[in-house]
Amino acid sequence: MALAADQYVRALLQSLWHGGVRHAVVSPGSRNTPLTNALTAPGSPFRLWLHLDERSAGYFALGIARQTGEPAMVLCTSGTAAANYLPAAVEARISRIPLIIVTADRPPEARDVGAAQTVDQVGLYGTHVKWSQDLPVADAGAIDELVRFARTAGARAASVATEVPAGPVHLNVPFREPLLEEGTPPPIVEEVPVAREPARAPAPDPATVARLASHVSGRRGLIVCGPETGGLSAHEVTALAAALGWPVIADPLSGLRTGDHPLETVIDCADAIVREPDFASRAAPELVLRFGAAPTSKPFNQWLAAQPATYRVLIDPAAGGTSGWRDPDLQSDEAVTADPGALCLALIEAAPAAASDGWGALWREANAAARSTMREAIDALDEPFEGRAVIDLAEALPDGATLVAGNSMPVRDIDSYFANTSKRIRIVGTRGASGIDGVVSGAVGAAAVSGGPVALLIGDLSFFHDLNGLWPLGRYGLNLTVLLVNNNGGGIFNFLPQRTAIPDRFEEWWGTPHGLDLRHAVALHGGRHTVLEAGDQRDVIQAALARPGLDVLELRTERDRNVVLHRQIWEQAASAVASQRLGRT
Amino acid sequence: MALAADQYVRALLQSLWHGGVRHAVVSPGSRNTPLTNALTAPGSPFRLWLHLDERSAGYFALGIARQTGEPAMVLCTSGTAAANYLPAAVEARISRIPLIIVTADRPPEARDVGAAQTVDQVGLYGTHVKWSQDLPVADAGAIDELVRFARTAGARAASVATEVPAGPVHLNVPFREPLLEEGTPPPIVEEVPVAREPARAPAPDPATVARLASHVSGRRGLIVCGPETGGLSAHEVTALAAALGWPVIADPLSGLRTGDHPLETVIDCADAIVREPDFASRAAPELVLRFGAAPTSKPFNQWLAAQPATYRVLIDPAAGGTSGWRDPDLQSDEAVTADPGALCLALIEAAPAAASDGWGALWREANAAARSTMREAIDALDEPFEGRAVIDLAEALPDGATLVAGNSMPVRDIDSYFANTSKRIRIVGTRGASGIDGVVSGAVGAAAVSGGPVALLIGDLSFFHDLNGLWPLGRYGLNLTVLLVNNNGGGIFNFLPQRTAIPDRFEEWWGTPHGLDLRHAVALHGGRHTVLEAGDQRDVIQAALARPGLDVLELRTERDRNVVLHRQIWEQAASAVASQRLGRT
Repeated sequence: MALAADQYVRALLQSLWHGGVRHAVVSPGSRNTPLTNALTAPGSPFRLWLHLDERSAGYFALGIARQTGEPAMVLCTSGTAAANYLPAAVEARISRIPLIIVTADRPPEARDVGAAQTVDQVGLYGTHVKWSQDLPVADAGAIDELVRFARTAGARAASVATEVPAGPVHLNVPFREPLLEEGTPPPIVEEVPVAREPARAPAPDPATVARLASHVSGRRGLIVCGPETGGLSAHEVTALAAALGWPVIADPLSGLRTGDHPLETVIDCADAIVREPDFASRAAPELVLRFGAAPTSKPFNQWLAAQPATYRVLIDPAAGGTSGWRDPDLQSDEAVTADPGALCLALIEAAPAAASDGWGALWREANAAARSTMREAIDALDEPFEGRAVIDLAEALPDGATLVAGNSMPVRDIDSYFANTSKRIRIVGTRGASGIDGVVSGAVGAAAVSGGPVALLIGDLSFFHDLNGLWPLGRYGLNLTVLLVNNNGGGIFNFLPQRTAIPDRFEEWWGTPHGLDLRHAVALHGGRHTVLEAGDQRDVIQAALARPGLDVLELRTERDRNVVLHRQIWEQAASAVASQRLGRT
Repeated sequence: MALAADQYVRALLQSLWHGGVRHAVVSPGSRNTPLTNALTAPGSPFRLWLHLDERSAGYFALGIARQTGEPAMVLCTSGTAAANYLPAAVEARISRIPLIIVTADRPPEARDVGAAQTVDQVGLYGTHVKWSQDLPVADAGAIDELVRFARTAGARAASVATEVPAGPVHLNVPFREPLLEEGTPPPIVEEVPVAREPARAPAPDPATVARLASHVSGRRGLIVCGPETGGLSAHEVTALAAALGWPVIADPLSGLRTGDHPLETVIDCADAIVREPDFASRAAPELVLRFGAAPTSKPFNQWLAAQPATYRVLIDPAAGGTSGWRDPDLQSDEAVTADPGALCLALIEAAPAAASDGWGALWREANAAARSTMREAIDALDEPFEGRAVIDLAEALPDGATLVAGNSMPVRDIDSYFANTSKRIRIVGTRGASGIDGVVSGAVGAAAVSGGPVALLIGDLSFFHDLNGLWPLGRYGLNLTVLLVNNNGGGIFNFLPQRTAIPDRFEEWWGTPHGLDLRHAVALHGGRHTVLEAGDQRDVIQAALARPGLDVLELRTERDRNVVLHRQIWEQAASAVASQRLGRT
């Protein structure tokens, strides 16, 4: 006769499995034993991962969920272990990643009476999860009701996490001792006790489509695609752009810069070209259709926000409540809640007139001038440059690869220097809250489930912050190539006013050099460490991508010099744009 | 003319300073610039620490606050950085450590509209802080009111954090750009704008004292002192024990096992002696006075909870609301809210009759028999043993040292093997939530402010979890000796039923070997690494304690063998207790 907890836990896990959860990331502990025991028992259908650090485990699961598009589960014991999931929950909420956080707890009678490893876990993640439930304790005297309750909780957790907008949910599961009995628990089979269909993004309203189609017809407009476009396919949005004769401003994380869709309309240098005043003035759009979160480029966002006569439409599958209204410049004239791909197709179907030829050409030619000029400028450099690393990486990555963009400077350098390519490369990043934490773990999570090579471009502070995130690489024999841009501190701060306004204290409190030789960190995790030289490093990167295990390629740069080089190249790009007779041919 | 934000921030920091905040731990960022700028400006009275990882920074500040008894402040930028403080907040709440969490935020108009590094920080720490406030944005048009508001917020934060029971508070401070101007901000002087006196523990009620005095008079009783006894002095509680003829059960974190107070009544082997059935039966008390949180020893707690005829009094300076009622066995017959030292003195003053001589002797003799037997058994071992490390460490530590006890096995081994000594050694630990996380940082925080040597006894999983916590050692040239007990996994789990009930999967999912060579982690942080041999290692430990910088002394052991040795020694101790004619001489 199995323990009540075993039956209860089995029902919960069955429902989660049926709801689409395939991967479970388990951290060690005693109180979570009934769950760990069921998850790891022979015949368990789950793909299981051990992680020793719950903070990293949360981001690792997030990386798995982002890569697979399926909800991933994390499980830990009671106490501060659970508190370590908060950063990943925050990120998952904003970046719309389905994450099932399961925390074991002491039973209610142990709460708030000074019991060990007992903290208030009810509602622990506050507004940062979409839904949470504090489950009752398994009780043999009411096992039928409780099994039904657990089934329902699992079904709801999986469907709430995956439905639009996807996000994290929290199940707090208390257990009384004994936590196990001799023998293995009953297997988790695929039996289907209860299911809840996740709500999908709504189809576009025909009246809205008709109104928008007439609005965009013949106008000079822009399509702006940020990160996390909610499943919008590159084929659909570029087809709409072609139909309208509009450029598509493609954030590096929009998924538009890479792949076998038409790339003619895709602008990959918006950040550079809007810095040129004449172009910036001539390129003012009458209309903007925005998909996804706000783009990474601050110059582009500021330029767009400064256009006085532009009508702005925010298109989002969930433009409603928390984390829905993704318009930090507060400039939208209307927000349309609809499946973005379906909206693109419906607009094409409505056959609006295209803009005049000159409009698309203006953007395309400026973009081409900036791109080739920046490339030439970088090729001419004979010193280490952070942008060069992006170019070499982009060219070294094969079809089917995944590139994880670190926050702060790496994602911005990818914005500047990762050019459109027909290779199918997936570029992802942690752009919800844009923290530098958890980035390593997100990449390792991608490496855990990706069929192709995975590369991570990351800065030194971010790499240091999540060093523990490297651990599953060795444990599970995963492959990851890290391009570590080490400028001994927070490189982005050298671009900010703090650098010049506080010259005496800038380096200590903003630049914040760590002074560590990160080779030791690589050795700790059994990786290979290589220092990158100046100049073309594609061969070195390609060799690393082809090898199994962890490879860390470290490019050592100097922060102040990096600012000089970036500004020099932006100026050269702007000059190139200015010297063109753009769209006037 | 200073920015409004500068005046506002200055008022806030002035109040915090006046409220007793001396140390501020700053993590890098841009949004927190007005606060960092003011804190680090010439003439700032604060002692400042940089930390690159906010999770570790939270525990580092907690270590400083625990060591100094003063509130310590942490400061970070907006976004997931702030979420990283949650584990330390949870611990500070339960272990009653005053922690001032200051998070910079984006202004309200940037919230929930998809702005970068903007997450819902209002109430981020939920019930895990005593008080929180989302401050208004500094505004030149209402600067007088806002400066007064900031002063009040700082004063309240400091006093709420320090008043009984101490704990964490949260100030969320939003800033609009510009974040700074040229020139240094006005100095933070000691000017006193507003203050709030923290509430103290109440003096004992005379009627309660009279009733308790008559209750304890001539009875066979126990004083039980757990961790965090709320400022109870060892002299006061041992004087009460002497007056009553009672033993004092001294948890390793009670502060009673070390120091120049009388040690005759202090029982340091309760965990071992209650395992012996004859003693366990004869030692049943009629009355128990409990101070502090529940003791670490599970056998002792279980034995005490099983006594049917014992009257139990919980004495706590704050036995009321959240985290106040520290009685996980739910056995208390009454809870007295009073300053514990004052209550001891008042009871002595009331002159109750002492217990018969045999009562104290029973405990003393059993304790002495167990202590000497365990010591002899360990001296006879010719293999590495985790308990031996505690004995050597205890004897190597000089007067004025601090010993930080890691959670899981280290604190339990200290309970078993750290014998009473008249050396003034401070033994501290993270026993609020008893997590294995943040332990390194707590020790490094102690090292940052301690006049004497600081040693940390820690297991390998806990060391790995908080590796980043070592960083300030190199940055600030601090001294720390780490005794790292490395049994490649979670040693405590090998003592649990999981070890035998799930033989096929135990090692992978509970034992959880990490497989890392931790020498590389020590090298990363510029420390010296030494492998400890079997046998007496006092010389090696003493040499490490005397050297500057980080020393990691690694004792490699085997988990299953460790269980065998522990059980063997407990049995030998029980036999020694059984063979005595305790208290019958």
